[in-house]
Amino acid sequence: MKNFTIISKKNGLENVEGFFFDGLNAGFKKDVPDVGFIYSDTTCRVSAVFTTNIFAAAPIKHFKRYKDNFETNFILLNSKNANAMTGEKGVEDIDEILSFVDCKLQNPLMSSTGVIGYRLDKEKFKKILKEFDFSKRDSDAVAKAIMTTDSFKKEVALEVTLNDGKKFNIAAIAKGAGMINPAMATMLCFVLTDSDIPKEDMDELLKEAVDESFNKISVDGDTSTNDTVMLLSSAKNPYQKDAFKEAINFILFELSQMILRDGEGSNKVVAFEINSAKSDEEAKKASKALSNSLLVKTALFGEDPNWGRIASTIGASGIECDENSLEIYYDDLLIYGKDRRELDCQTEEKAYQIMKKDSFKITCNLNIGEGSYTSYGCDLSYEYVKINAEYRT
Amino acid sequence: MKNFTIISKKNGLENVEGFFFDGLNAGFKKDVPDVGFIYSDTTCRVSAVFTTNIFAAAPIKHFKRYKDNFETNFILLNSKNANAMTGEKGVEDIDEILSFVDCKLQNPLMSSTGVIGYRLDKEKFKKILKEFDFSKRDSDAVAKAIMTTDSFKKEVALEVTLNDGKKFNIAAIAKGAGMINPAMATMLCFVLTDSDIPKEDMDELLKEAVDESFNKISVDGDTSTNDTVMLLSSAKNPYQKDAFKEAINFILFELSQMILRDGEGSNKVVAFEINSAKSDEEAKKASKALSNSLLVKTALFGEDPNWGRIASTIGASGIECDENSLEIYYDDLLIYGKDRRELDCQTEEKAYQIMKKDSFKITCNLNIGEGSYTSYGCDLSYEYVKINAEYRT
Repeated sequence: MKNFTIISKKNGLENVEGFFFDGLNAGFKKDVPDVGFIYSDTTCRVSAVFTTNIFAAAPIKHFKRYKDNFETNFILLNSKNANAMTGEKGVEDIDEILSFVDCKLQNPLMSSTGVIGYRLDKEKFKKILKEFDFSKRDSDAVAKAIMTTDSFKKEVALEVTLNDGKKFNIAAIAKGAGMINPAMATMLCFVLTDSDIPKEDMDELLKEAVDESFNKISVDGDTSTNDTVMLLSSAKNPYQKDAFKEAINFILFELSQMILRDGEGSNKVVAFEINSAKSDEEAKKASKALSNSLLVKTALFGEDPNWGRIASTIGASGIECDENSLEIYYDDLLIYGKDRRELDCQTEEKAYQIMKKDSFKITCNLNIGEGSYTSYGCDLSYEYVKINAEYRT
Repeated sequence: MKNFTIISKKNGLENVEGFFFDGLNAGFKKDVPDVGFIYSDTTCRVSAVFTTNIFAAAPIKHFKRYKDNFETNFILLNSKNANAMTGEKGVEDIDEILSFVDCKLQNPLMSSTGVIGYRLDKEKFKKILKEFDFSKRDSDAVAKAIMTTDSFKKEVALEVTLNDGKKFNIAAIAKGAGMINPAMATMLCFVLTDSDIPKEDMDELLKEAVDESFNKISVDGDTSTNDTVMLLSSAKNPYQKDAFKEAINFILFELSQMILRDGEGSNKVVAFEINSAKSDEEAKKASKALSNSLLVKTALFGEDPNWGRIASTIGASGIECDENSLEIYYDDLLIYGKDRRELDCQTEEKAYQIMKKDSFKITCNLNIGEGSYTSYGCDLSYEYVKINAEYRT
């Protein structure tokens, strides 16, 4: 029996004690928040996971210049400009912009998302930073300030009650809809907690939760220069490891599914479960090949139960596999296997009904070993092409 | 100085001595050829390169059952059904269908392309095979018989004159527009020659030519179950290695570019040249990452000189690279480099003019080593999504 209970809360970051946040319009986007902040009245322990892209953006380089186990009380956020591929100047710009903040800051951070290859407009930041009110707690505004092609804001909040009646809170905001890929940390995600979690547990539990959530999703197979997941703790409430682990896993998984559901132009979320592969590593390879295959993604969009593309993609992924032992299911419907080689009309109609759903699962049992892995993907629509052909215009 | 001359010839396979070929409609497609054959009045040496997909289709398994260095005089071709994922029965079907051919066959072959997962309709083959006329030489018809989503037939023919005045011929047909990917042989391609080329040279030169052509292109990063490149020689005319090598390299490169130009829904062909990488292998990795990136492909479609996506994709490819030494060119226009970090309006306008062309080159100099590689890709349009969402309907 668990010695804690977790309940979902309305809204987002305002559930967590000790933090202040807001989003304002600095003129980078039209009328909606494009610059935001997260501020804490005490310094916070911080743990972060970043992109594996070798051209990590300036904010990530800036973060890494602080010494291990540094604490911070401030993150400046912006969308529309990623401050990536801007060289040393991009990092210097961050220091200069942060120096404009009219408040006592401890190891301040910045996090950016948007177009690659442009320097930040320091004057606009200077102006907007004067309007910041560090007593505001507007989670909605800060969640919107980090949106780019997102069609909805992404917030999740949980309240954890331990069995002595004491409570702590954990909440997060995230953004992401494109440039979402399998081998990364993710786009931007900020997790706040008031639980008194030790730094080493933050690092361990954050990494585990990212592996089980953001690292399992793919919209388009592209790894951004700016992917960041950051966990901040104000340490005002108690900590219990099992409870915290379950809470952060839940939050990051929920957010990763929200990102996928908001995948640029995507209409459905599909789980690709590979079972009985030679190893977990091989299962992962096949699963990720499926979630990134253009032919699989367009068949999902067309709601065409063309399992041949599923088989062909697994076959091309380079893993060990036998067409005589392979079984393919759409949800619980066996669509290919020992005794089902061709689609009869009845099975095809059932498969078609499954594919019409907002989300479903494709399961492939290879029947040759013990390895398994599930990744999550979405369909590829005209809309994806439109959004990305016109991104900068 | 070369001791041979090569000239292009009109039409296709009819330039090569000793072969007969035709395409007929068997009722799988509407009114256009869907079954074809290549027949030779003597047995031919044969060399082939096949898909790396582990679920190689039945025709490939059937080919591999013959002993090394077998000779053949017949290939039966069909489109609309790939005879893939059909198990042992799929191979037996080929033997049965080939037994219907009313002609003395030596180690007959079959090659198929189309939808995965259905058995061949043997009755339809039985009927159409009776109508085959083995004295026909209709290259146009057989080239069309192997088309699927192709919008035009693909034929190339060369005549090679050696310096003693003797000649030989080499010609090929190919099909391919989708499921075209980097780690494969390619879709279907049949090269015929009357040159008396030894079997070991056939194997060597075919493999080299495939590496320099089909293995450098990508429409969608998906490796088909049926990819086949086959070279047949009737050995009726002389052979010279240098001349043959140049001729086959030219033919396969031309055909690979035609396939790319016919890439499903594609509007332009782009060369991705990587120079001064740490190694050729790393250059290849980066180049192929570019030709397969959805974000790069949609930016090409949108004619958006968003070089940030080029940089980000190289950065995500896992190779060694430094943003301070990287240079990116669109044709001869420096778009990112030491002294050009942001796009000014004039450069952007010039880049835009380059991107409007049918084909252009993106060159990335990493300036850290000696490795280089060029691959070829195309844009990703609404049309690609449409074609692949509706493929089976």
